[in-house]
Order: sequence, then C-alpha cells, then structure tokens
Amino acid sequence: MFFYVIAILTICWWWVWRERDRLKITNLTGKYIFITGCDTGFGNLAARTFDKKGFRVFASCLTETGAEALKAASSERLQTLQLDVTDSDNVKKVAERIKAEVGSEGLWGLINNAGIIGPTGPTDWLKIEHFRAPIEVNLIGLINVTLNMLPLVKKAKGRIVNISSIGGRLAVNGGGYFPSKYGLEGFNDSLRRDMIAFGVKVSCIEPGLFNTELSNQTKVIKEREAIWNQLPPATKKQYGEGYLQEDSTMGIKWLNILL
Amino acid sequence: MFFYVIAILTICWWWVWRERDRLKITNLTGKYIFITGCDTGFGNLAARTFDKKGFRVFASCLTETGAEALKAASSERLQTLQLDVTDSDNVKKVAERIKAEVGSEGLWGLINNAGIIGPTGPTDWLKIEHFRAPIEVNLIGLINVTLNMLPLVKKAKGRIVNISSIGGRLAVNGGGYFPSKYGLEGFNDSLRRDMIAFGVKVSCIEPGLFNTELSNQTKVIKEREAIWNQLPPATKKQYGEGYLQEDSTMGIKWLNILL
Repeated sequence: MFFYVIAILTICWWWVWRERDRLKITNLTGKYIFITGCDTGFGNLAARTFDKKGFRVFASCLTETGAEALKAASSERLQTLQLDVTDSDNVKKVAERIKAEVGSEGLWGLINNAGIIGPTGPTDWLKIEHFRAPIEVNLIGLINVTLNMLPLVKKAKGRIVNISSIGGRLAVNGGGYFPSKYGLEGFNDSLRRDMIAFGVKVSCIEPGLFNTELSNQTKVIKEREAIWNQLPPATKKQYGEGYLQEDSTMGIKWLNILL
Repeated sequence: MFFYVIAILTICWWWVWRERDRLKITNLTGKYIFITGCDTGFGNLAARTFDKKGFRVFASCLTETGAEALKAASSERLQTLQLDVTDSDNVKKVAERIKAEVGSEGLWGLINNAGIIGPTGPTDWLKIEHFRAPIEVNLIGLINVTLNMLPLVKKAKGRIVNISSIGGRLAVNGGGYFPSKYGLEGFNDSLRRDMIAFGVKVSCIEPGLFNTELSNQTKVIKEREAIWNQLPPATKKQYGEGYLQEDSTMGIKWLNILL
C-alpha cells in the first residue's frame, strides 16, 4: 500500500515538473526588457540572448563603442541607449524614452546589471573616494534606475532581476564593492516584499568569480599598484616592501583556481 | 572516573570565567575614546557612561544644543566637538584635532554611532534623495570617519565599535536605512579582517527597536505622511485612501509591542 502511494506521488510530481518545464513564454515581440551595463560581460550576453529569442530589448551602454559593437551583433529589434546610472538626469531621460516606446504594454523585464568593482585592497590603503565610486554605481545608481522604471514594470506586472554578487554575502576584501553589494541585498529584499502585491517579481543573482571585464585581473592589480605607490612611507613600512608582490601573486593564483 | 573529570573541568571553567570577569581595564585617564552622534540616544549614553568611568571621551555632536547639554551633564575631562559626518572637510579637521590631543597614545576606542533612519515607506513612494540621505550618513560618512581615525586607532592597538542595526540583517521596510545598514555589515567585516594583524579589534552591534530619537514614532509617521501627500494621484489610488491611516495604526501597534 505504502509503496503504491509513494509511486503514484512520484509519477505525479515528475509529470507536474515536466509540464512546468514545457511552459513557454508566448508573444515575445510584445515583451520589452530593459538591461543596464550592456557594453561587456553579463549585460552584453543577456542583451544578445533575449534579442535572439525574440524579445524587444533596450540595451543601455555606458560607452558609445560598447553600444556600436552590440548593435552590430544583434537584430534590428534591439535598441541601444547611452546611460550612466550615476547621472540622475540621464536616468530620467532614458526612463521617459522607454515610457514612450513601451506605451500601454509596460516593461516586462528590468535587469539591473551595470556595476563596477572599484579599487580594492586593505582598508587602511583606501580613501573615501575609492569607496564612493562603486557605491554610487552599484547601489545608488541601481536604486535610481529602479525607481524610475518601477511604474512601467508595475504596469506590465513584470519582473526585476538585480545582479548582486557573492560579494553581497562575503566581504572578502577591503573596498566599496562589498558594502555596495551588501546594500543591494537589502534593497532587493524590501523591493521584493513591496512589489508582491502588484504582481511584480523581484529576484537577485549572486554570481561568484566569472571571467568578465569586472574582474579583469590586470586591471584590478594595476589599480592596486597605483594605490600602493601613493601610500605614505609609514604605511608601506607596516606592510613591508614585498607585500604587494606577494599579495598579487596569491591573488592571481586564487583567480586562476576559481576561474 | 568520568564524573570526576567533568566535575574538575566544570570547576576549572567556572574559575577561568570568574577571573576573566574580574579583569579591569587600568589607567583609564590615559585612554581616549571618540564617539560620533552624541546629541541623544546611544551615543549620548555611551559618552556619559565612559566619562563617568574615567576615560577621556571626545564626544562629537551634530548640533550645538546637543553638545551643550552633554557638556553640562559630564565631567571636565569630556570634550565635545561639532561634527557632521557627511562633511568631508569637517571630518578631516576633527581627525587632525584628535591626533594633536592624543599624541603618541593614539585612540583607544572609536564608536561609530551617528546615524539617521531617513524616510521609510513602500519603495514606489520614495525618491532617490530619500535613499541617499541615510546612505550618506550611515554608510559613507561612517566609512570616512573610520578611514580618518584609523591611523590613531592602529597606534593604540585600539578597538572600533560600529553601531549597525537589526535592519542590517532584515530589510523590513522600503527606504535607504536598510541598504545603508546592510552595507555597514559588509564594511565592518572586511575592516575586522584587515585590522586583525594590527591588534585592532572591530565589532558590530545590531540593536533591535529601542526608544531613541532615531525611531521617534511621531517623526517617522509625520515623514511618511509628508511623502504620501506628495504622491501622484495614480499611486494614491493604487494603495487606497485608507492605506496610510491603517499602516500607521499598525506601525504604532507594532512599536508598542516591541518597545
């Protein structure tokens, strides 16, 4: 008896699972997705992937070269926009343009992907500007884009995907990247709860170390060297002349293991 | 046999515990503590408590009236300073003054207490400035004070206590307070790891709801009402005219249960 019950439940479960996986999103050409930071990396890949599937993608890029390269690699449907998420006027204007484009359809998806890692290193090597840079982009810029797009997402009962990081759970280094991503986790969670009643889904992705421009080894190490060179002699002495070399070698070893 | 081992271990444990609790910090008058946000609440209480014990307290206040009231309630040893943690020049000048005062002793303790709650409410009621205000004070201001005081704390092999909040773990509402406190958790953790090698201890306190100026019910509700009054009619309609009243009543009920 018990065996039969388990067997029937297992078959039911398998069947529901299979049917769920068979569900397809329909009418893709009527669905608008806005993605930030599409110059390279995840944003670029997401823009090309959704474009290929048939969605109407608005891909915002920080640089003109990034926008041009993406335009060349995608269909006629995809539109690129220039957007610096730290520029409030720029954010407002982009939101107005999207509003005019999507009309009564609203925005089916918003992917907050734009982010920078900023200078990292021991906390006592850094200045407040080093911390501010990633907080302005990854936290305040992201919140600003979200607030401006929210009416359009609510209209479509859409979804918001925030690209956080494992760095939003583990602060493995000094620098503004980790506080900015921790902060995003907090924003994501209150947004998720606030939007449930409107049928808007809010998710958060926390990637580990991936080989994108963000974690470009050469760039990260160069930035750290520049900071080291500016340190007062007293601080350099505390860490020892060999510290940077040793730290970088270890850093590269770790990156190579993880990537 | 087994019983005797347990009994002896228990007695040893009790004795070590008792001795540890008997340890007293000596030479209090040679120990300097810098505390931010001493106008009211936790900062004010900490300043008066450490002063009474005999420490040399530098109590920074945002307002002159706060500084005067604290001065009147404390000993000759305690010094008040005017400090707005969001004003970078102000932070630098205060750090220079503290450096001159503590000399070769360094700073035995730094308590980062200054904080604001900022406007709270459903995320789609808020503007980016509402989010920025608490992030500038609770996160960027706190990091700036820490970076400026760090050389003095390292000199004394001192300790840093960051006043975070349960709001750094649970984002129970919309607004910038939660991202700012989540971000502080990240900063606290990388700072803690970076400072271990220098003999500097870094701790984080996460208070729940306490009856201080920060969580002043009347103020919080007034701010929310002001935001409600500025909302576009479409948003008001989505929430319904009775929403604010109901939400506030429930808020007060919760506060009364928690406080």
